[in-house]
Amino acid sequence: MTDLGRFITLEGGEGTGKSTLIAGLEGALSARGHDVVVTREPGGTKLAEAVRNLALHPPEDQAWSPLAHALLMNTSRDDHLRNLIRPALARGSWVICDRFADSTRAYQSIDGVTPEDLLAIEAIVVGDTRPDLTLILDAAPNALAERRHQRNVSDVFERKATEFHERVRSAFLEIAESEPERCVVLDALGSPDQVLTAALNAIDTRLDPS
Amino acid sequence: MTDLGRFITLEGGEGTGKSTLIAGLEGALSARGHDVVVTREPGGTKLAEAVRNLALHPPEDQAWSPLAHALLMNTSRDDHLRNLIRPALARGSWVICDRFADSTRAYQSIDGVTPEDLLAIEAIVVGDTRPDLTLILDAAPNALAERRHQRNVSDVFERKATEFHERVRSAFLEIAESEPERCVVLDALGSPDQVLTAALNAIDTRLDPS
Repeated sequence: MTDLGRFITLEGGEGTGKSTLIAGLEGALSARGHDVVVTREPGGTKLAEAVRNLALHPPEDQAWSPLAHALLMNTSRDDHLRNLIRPALARGSWVICDRFADSTRAYQSIDGVTPEDLLAIEAIVVGDTRPDLTLILDAAPNALAERRHQRNVSDVFERKATEFHERVRSAFLEIAESEPERCVVLDALGSPDQVLTAALNAIDTRLDPS
Repeated sequence: MTDLGRFITLEGGEGTGKSTLIAGLEGALSARGHDVVVTREPGGTKLAEAVRNLALHPPEDQAWSPLAHALLMNTSRDDHLRNLIRPALARGSWVICDRFADSTRAYQSIDGVTPEDLLAIEAIVVGDTRPDLTLILDAAPNALAERRHQRNVSDVFERKATEFHERVRSAFLEIAESEPERCVVLDALGSPDQVLTAALNAIDTRLDPS
């Protein structure tokens, strides 16, 4: 845990409500008097966005290997850490980041990069700037799909196989299990208020805010 | 050593004559009946060139950290290995590469990335495709500068401090010392014919060509 600011990351599959929770946390923590910086990965700085762009749009008819993709995500993260996250924490801000290193662990391991390689690269890039708290929004993919159907929302989530969403969910739950001191799993099927309350409880318990 | 092709890399500071030696090797090895593929780093494939371009030209007023630069070089290398070097070796070709992982070790360690981090990332990206032979072109920077003055050549070499060239030289010599079974140091101050003869001797001795 850093001496000054606090570093909170939100993780979870698509459609689990990360953006809604972040908006709620930003309001609640600001109301408590904290300076709150909200950011996201991949991206957050000029160079990080440039790398994100190259990762998402390789030159015509080409594709990145899963390892190359993981290296690009970590290049982006390096700049994000150096030029936004670490300076904000050093100023005493609370940083809330929409996805961070756990997303690379989850998605690129599904793509076939070994967990050992992913953890080795992550350790080099992240160094001591590990999140003080990671909130993992969790729900059964079928239940999330059902909820979105009821709201007439159809998006990228629907177009991917349920099996993929199940693998993402499992990958995040494995991370939570392997690092219980850092990770808290939240029920993503609760109402926005319920999820926010659970998140603030986790913050009160884990980060002992002043 | 691979069963089929052979993987030879050339390393050394600027102005040591790598391009001249590569042209000589390509001719000599082709004359022996080998299929020879000449390539270079950073670059060699479409994606590798795209990453090289981003590494050399970060968006306006921005600069990569030395670690980010090393990650980009390795992203470029990953694609180069997958889409050019490994397929060529599998076909039985001899691949001659102008700079490879040792250049990242040398230059990025001078920039301040720890050797441990550089070796860890390199091991993940290069895997089993280590060079069968690395020819390191070596000379005292002052002697190289003197030779270039005599030829009325003035280029990027001249504009960098001698101290930088000395550090590059030392870094390559340290690599040669740490992996004597892979690396051969050649005197870059010899004539092109002398250097080529020494390189072919090293190939005959180390790679036992048919």
